[in-house]
Amino acid sequence: MPTQSETCLPAGRAGILRTPHGDIKTPAFVAVATKADIKGIDVRLFPELGIQTIISNTYHLYLSPGEQLIDKAGGLHKFMAFDGPIMTDSGGFQVFSLGEGFGKKVSKVQPEHEGLAKGSRAPVHLSLLQEPSVPAFYDSELATSHGKLAIVDEEGVSFTSHVDGSFHRFTPERSIEIQHKLGADIIYAFDECTSPAADKAYQKEAMDRTHRWADRSLKAHRQNLAANAAQGIYGIVQGGRYADLRIESARTLAAMDFDGYGIGGSFSKQDILGILDKVNRELPNDKPRHLLGIGEPEDIFIGVEAGIDTFDCVLPTRNGRTGGIYTTRGKVQIPNAEFREDFGPLDEGCACPVCLKHTRAYVHHLFRTHEMLGPILASMHNIFFLTNLVSQIRQSILDGNFHAFRDTFLGSYGKV
Amino acid sequence: MPTQSETCLPAGRAGILRTPHGDIKTPAFVAVATKADIKGIDVRLFPELGIQTIISNTYHLYLSPGEQLIDKAGGLHKFMAFDGPIMTDSGGFQVFSLGEGFGKKVSKVQPEHEGLAKGSRAPVHLSLLQEPSVPAFYDSELATSHGKLAIVDEEGVSFTSHVDGSFHRFTPERSIEIQHKLGADIIYAFDECTSPAADKAYQKEAMDRTHRWADRSLKAHRQNLAANAAQGIYGIVQGGRYADLRIESARTLAAMDFDGYGIGGSFSKQDILGILDKVNRELPNDKPRHLLGIGEPEDIFIGVEAGIDTFDCVLPTRNGRTGGIYTTRGKVQIPNAEFREDFGPLDEGCACPVCLKHTRAYVHHLFRTHEMLGPILASMHNIFFLTNLVSQIRQSILDGNFHAFRDTFLGSYGKV
Repeated sequence: MPTQSETCLPAGRAGILRTPHGDIKTPAFVAVATKADIKGIDVRLFPELGIQTIISNTYHLYLSPGEQLIDKAGGLHKFMAFDGPIMTDSGGFQVFSLGEGFGKKVSKVQPEHEGLAKGSRAPVHLSLLQEPSVPAFYDSELATSHGKLAIVDEEGVSFTSHVDGSFHRFTPERSIEIQHKLGADIIYAFDECTSPAADKAYQKEAMDRTHRWADRSLKAHRQNLAANAAQGIYGIVQGGRYADLRIESARTLAAMDFDGYGIGGSFSKQDILGILDKVNRELPNDKPRHLLGIGEPEDIFIGVEAGIDTFDCVLPTRNGRTGGIYTTRGKVQIPNAEFREDFGPLDEGCACPVCLKHTRAYVHHLFRTHEMLGPILASMHNIFFLTNLVSQIRQSILDGNFHAFRDTFLGSYGKV
Repeated sequence: MPTQSETCLPAGRAGILRTPHGDIKTPAFVAVATKADIKGIDVRLFPELGIQTIISNTYHLYLSPGEQLIDKAGGLHKFMAFDGPIMTDSGGFQVFSLGEGFGKKVSKVQPEHEGLAKGSRAPVHLSLLQEPSVPAFYDSELATSHGKLAIVDEEGVSFTSHVDGSFHRFTPERSIEIQHKLGADIIYAFDECTSPAADKAYQKEAMDRTHRWADRSLKAHRQNLAANAAQGIYGIVQGGRYADLRIESARTLAAMDFDGYGIGGSFSKQDILGILDKVNRELPNDKPRHLLGIGEPEDIFIGVEAGIDTFDCVLPTRNGRTGGIYTTRGKVQIPNAEFREDFGPLDEGCACPVCLKHTRAYVHHLFRTHEMLGPILASMHNIFFLTNLVSQIRQSILDGNFHAFRDTFLGSYGKV
């Protein structure tokens, strides 16, 4: 963690990410709407929760209700009644983490990189308001194993649905085809997510395949002229916890004509946070960078400082559903007995719609009596907490006091 | 059901029910907020759902979080952040239907009616905008048995919590004491709810005891000068499915100085709907009448015509949680396959916040993928449907076309 004496480091970048459905002020927190909804929160509440943009899930929406239905509805924006910017990830992470398979089988095929002309109009464009950033400090930790749950071959991945066990197959082309029908503003190349326990040889092999899949994803996207104009496509940097692989991955993808870049996890944030800066230095400065699946308060500071523009994370809603509440002093469990007679807001000074109206004692009561309004209010507060934090971080960059803001925030965070 | 030729009957009454926390335009649907929340719906959404007033539950709030805590919070209005009119029922129904007991034991004690002076200021007052009503027609049906689950004696009821099996005792005085601490605008006398299977002799015995408890409840309320000024108290008419007992009960309670009257169910609406008019004719015309726990669309027309002012019913939210949606053509199950590709609103022409934004296909998807937003949106729509229906009924009374409105509505309702 940087100390005050290190605040001579640059402080991340503030910008505006232009998309077909409006601008995103970056850095930005991207709320997770896996199945075309944020759990428990109606789209009408998005503005007051500071939600500029969301990320939905290709794997989940492909399984139900299916991309054909969403296409019939007029695309994801119309289906879920949200007219702001939407991302869809490629399904790679979910296929490997949720899809149930029967072992692992990898057949090797030669890569076939080839350059692809970019469309005449860039659907996604980042305007930087600041200079680029440099390193943050983070100690990597070895992560635990997740195992493999799908059959990988050079062409794609075969897997069975986690819902009903039915058999499915994704290829880069199929993932892009589905994402075209879903119609998000930003789509992702199909990637292979490795287990953190995989050895370096396998990480390298999977990364190389991900690069070939990136090329095929890009080609499949650029060949669809309609989608090419309406949707931007991000490549996904992989390489596990190995800095040299990550750098190689970023360099390889940077040479491809993506509209932006996602930095993929390997099921563990410790794999990636410490080498983010090295990755970002390889990526084009004028293109947006999204850190996939990581966005706890302490991680966001590290990511922003390393030059990340957008983050998504399920934890604000996942924690919220079990009573975990973000506060400026750290996370608390609102169902705990200590909050039974606490008539203050969830977080002192918070301007979210929940804190302006309700007390800890009330939300505690809702959890204790198993009322679903408890998880709803907790999720609302948590999402606001994250969007508001990132908004404050953005302002601190523009004001030139990012490090002071970070030190103040982190100085009290975790003190409960 | 009355036919067009019977529309010479009066059409119920429209009025304004004044309470310490504002006016209720009657007839009104009272949304159920059992544990100090409407399931899944934040208080901030009440106005746009047409929610003027709610009813919370003394039994549930006594068990958790306890009336002492709500008192510390500043009362129920502050605890749940709702500053409109609130009712609390007395807990009688829940003690008998949810409280787990060990048989039934009734000891007889002589009634001790005695007149009680009314407070100098009436906290609850009904201004009628119309003449009183007369009969509706409804065929009573024999109801099924529920059994008895608590020990009743002349002084009160002993029961064990449905949550943790702990032992508790309610008396009329204790119920009123709890309701004073909860601080609702309208509280209810403590009553004994009988099983519809009970014979007439027992119904009579229980009713007589309920009258003695009404008298004790009223006395306990009037003795508390602070509560007397801030809370109105309703007596509860009982008597099961026997018209003569219901009439006797209404007549007996009418002679007591209550601020209004609830008409209690006996676990089955068939027991009471057919004799509502006879009951209401015994009750003072200038005092409000609430039909407890009954409020499906078809019942509301019957109740209004018979002179009921307010209704409460859990079904809009209970149905909503399992995908039951009210429409002008009757209830539909939105998770059914037929709605998978239905891009219309939940109910054609509905102006609720859900129908203005979302499609049947989207809400269907949310239910099919077990997203809690499905139950939330369905509950929101259903509550609006009921409050809006009652609001339209009110307007039809004021416009002198209640019967035409009723016939039009019921002519299409149930046609899906």
